[in-house]
Amino acid sequence: MGEDHVFLRACRRESTEYTPVWLMRHAGRYMEEYRDIRRKVTFLGLCKSPDLAAEVTLLPVQKLGVDAAIIFGDILLPLEGMGIHLEFAEGRGPLIRNPIREGEDIERLRLIEPEEDVPFLLKAIEIVRRELEGRVPLIGFAGAPFTLASYLIEGGRSNDYSKTKGLMLGFPSWWHRLMEKLAEGTIRYLRAQVNRGAQALQLFDTWVGCLNPGDYEAHVLPYSRRVIQEVGEQVPLIHFSVGTSGFLHLIKKAGGDVIGIDWHMDLGRTWECLGYDVGIQGNLDPSVLLASRQVIEVHVQRVLESAGNCPGHIFNLGHGVLPETPVENVIFMVETVHRLSRR
Amino acid sequence: MGEDHVFLRACRRESTEYTPVWLMRHAGRYMEEYRDIRRKVTFLGLCKSPDLAAEVTLLPVQKLGVDAAIIFGDILLPLEGMGIHLEFAEGRGPLIRNPIREGEDIERLRLIEPEEDVPFLLKAIEIVRRELEGRVPLIGFAGAPFTLASYLIEGGRSNDYSKTKGLMLGFPSWWHRLMEKLAEGTIRYLRAQVNRGAQALQLFDTWVGCLNPGDYEAHVLPYSRRVIQEVGEQVPLIHFSVGTSGFLHLIKKAGGDVIGIDWHMDLGRTWECLGYDVGIQGNLDPSVLLASRQVIEVHVQRVLESAGNCPGHIFNLGHGVLPETPVENVIFMVETVHRLSRR
Repeated sequence: MGEDHVFLRACRRESTEYTPVWLMRHAGRYMEEYRDIRRKVTFLGLCKSPDLAAEVTLLPVQKLGVDAAIIFGDILLPLEGMGIHLEFAEGRGPLIRNPIREGEDIERLRLIEPEEDVPFLLKAIEIVRRELEGRVPLIGFAGAPFTLASYLIEGGRSNDYSKTKGLMLGFPSWWHRLMEKLAEGTIRYLRAQVNRGAQALQLFDTWVGCLNPGDYEAHVLPYSRRVIQEVGEQVPLIHFSVGTSGFLHLIKKAGGDVIGIDWHMDLGRTWECLGYDVGIQGNLDPSVLLASRQVIEVHVQRVLESAGNCPGHIFNLGHGVLPETPVENVIFMVETVHRLSRR
Repeated sequence: MGEDHVFLRACRRESTEYTPVWLMRHAGRYMEEYRDIRRKVTFLGLCKSPDLAAEVTLLPVQKLGVDAAIIFGDILLPLEGMGIHLEFAEGRGPLIRNPIREGEDIERLRLIEPEEDVPFLLKAIEIVRRELEGRVPLIGFAGAPFTLASYLIEGGRSNDYSKTKGLMLGFPSWWHRLMEKLAEGTIRYLRAQVNRGAQALQLFDTWVGCLNPGDYEAHVLPYSRRVIQEVGEQVPLIHFSVGTSGFLHLIKKAGGDVIGIDWHMDLGRTWECLGYDVGIQGNLDPSVLLASRQVIEVHVQRVLESAGNCPGHIFNLGHGVLPETPVENVIFMVETVHRLSRR
């Protein structure tokens, strides 16, 4: 049911009547309805309320006309089930007050049991699928092992990820143990989402671009590959990362039906280098949505032309919607992608 | 005099008996002697004292055995001569309290007169050249127009450079005027450095990696190219940027004898794509210098092997030395580059 939707067909690199489009963080602070809900509940409170999370998940489908929904949540949600204390301070991003420092901390990490640890998210998936009635597919998602490890070790975001790299390069057996646990947890988490109704998956390796290609290949790729091999059989998987234009061939080697790219590269050139045996997702610069309609249209056109009508392009931003983005511009962008790409 | 030094020969892609090496920010906070000096004087005070700036410039030559010195300073120093009020708050980077907001602010910017506006830096170049007695060449440097514009508009560093892009995309005639002034100022600044004794130049387009390739080509490349064409005839020029692995072919198109790259790409693959008609500088991950000697040696070896002994490789980090780097590791790295690359 719904398997012939334009988004899922593009994931399978089948030709479509127009280019499907969705946006990372398309349900978020830039939207008035989202801010209204957030006045009543914290970010974690929202994630943990299945009805509210479902409502927020559906907002962009109704309001923007996007071709896919993505379940509302955060890549760090499963960490709580591993025994990590999570905070989301307004405007400062996530904060972990008990970050990992040594082998014992890694041994103490529990493997998650999705039904017990993230029942709210699984319930929200059920609600969204029911409400959507097959109009657009629902994407589930998770953080990739490296990106999760970076939060666990740094305690939040970092400028240089030197603590993460310090553990990776200096304590390879601890690193291996940590990445194994995170890979196993991510597999369980994604499988549970598919079992409850997620029709596609996106694996976010958001911060892996801090690495050099040699270290990615040696210390990260095997764990991402394991996750993708274990869950990518069931539904299409989008493998997304930022700042990896110099080693996207290794990201592809780790796996994924679709490679999600940032905006610091030409989509067409990149796709040609990667080969047309994967789809590609991207890659509008999110800042373009702060500009005029004329500028937006020029940039949308540039991305579409670059993709050259090859089957397997999913239009998206290169990263999340900026909070100061006018919602009218997002609506205009989605409409422009549909209008300009219609064959 | 000194034109046959290994560093300058590598800049000209002549073969050398070993790979020359220097490090961005190799005179800085990680060094005890530097911290001792900084206890007595502010950062700007140090930049503006020719004797102290010369002393700091010479430190890495004496202590690390690097193959080039780079004049001590900051890419933002010439902005003061343009009428901008600069501050360097400890640990927070540069701060501009009167950033550019509109066309009038741009009209008010003065063109610098290096002899009047940065006499201290030119004097320091003279002292360093005299003290060096031709042992190693001295590199001069400047910020590229885009990176300078980003500081002027954002007032400091930024996560998304959305104000800069807003002016670039929304007010193209203001942008053009600003970039013209910055290009002209940068030409004057670099020429003055060469006239006083700089034997090579590095143009830092540190933050240009925030752009997409289309906007780089349309709104930035022409100004960088003008700078490089006007000053690159006299001495070799290294064109450095971060996060541009997806559009290094455009960085090369803007010009430079040597392209300076970050660590998020394989140096050998990148060089092959760019073509061997330019040299390449890089690209060790700075975090590697926080690890053990064994890890450092493996990573140095990897970069050297990747470069494959082609003439025109200058060994460097992919960005500046991290402040927490042990100085012994830097000494070991320089020694390792020399030892492993000796033909």
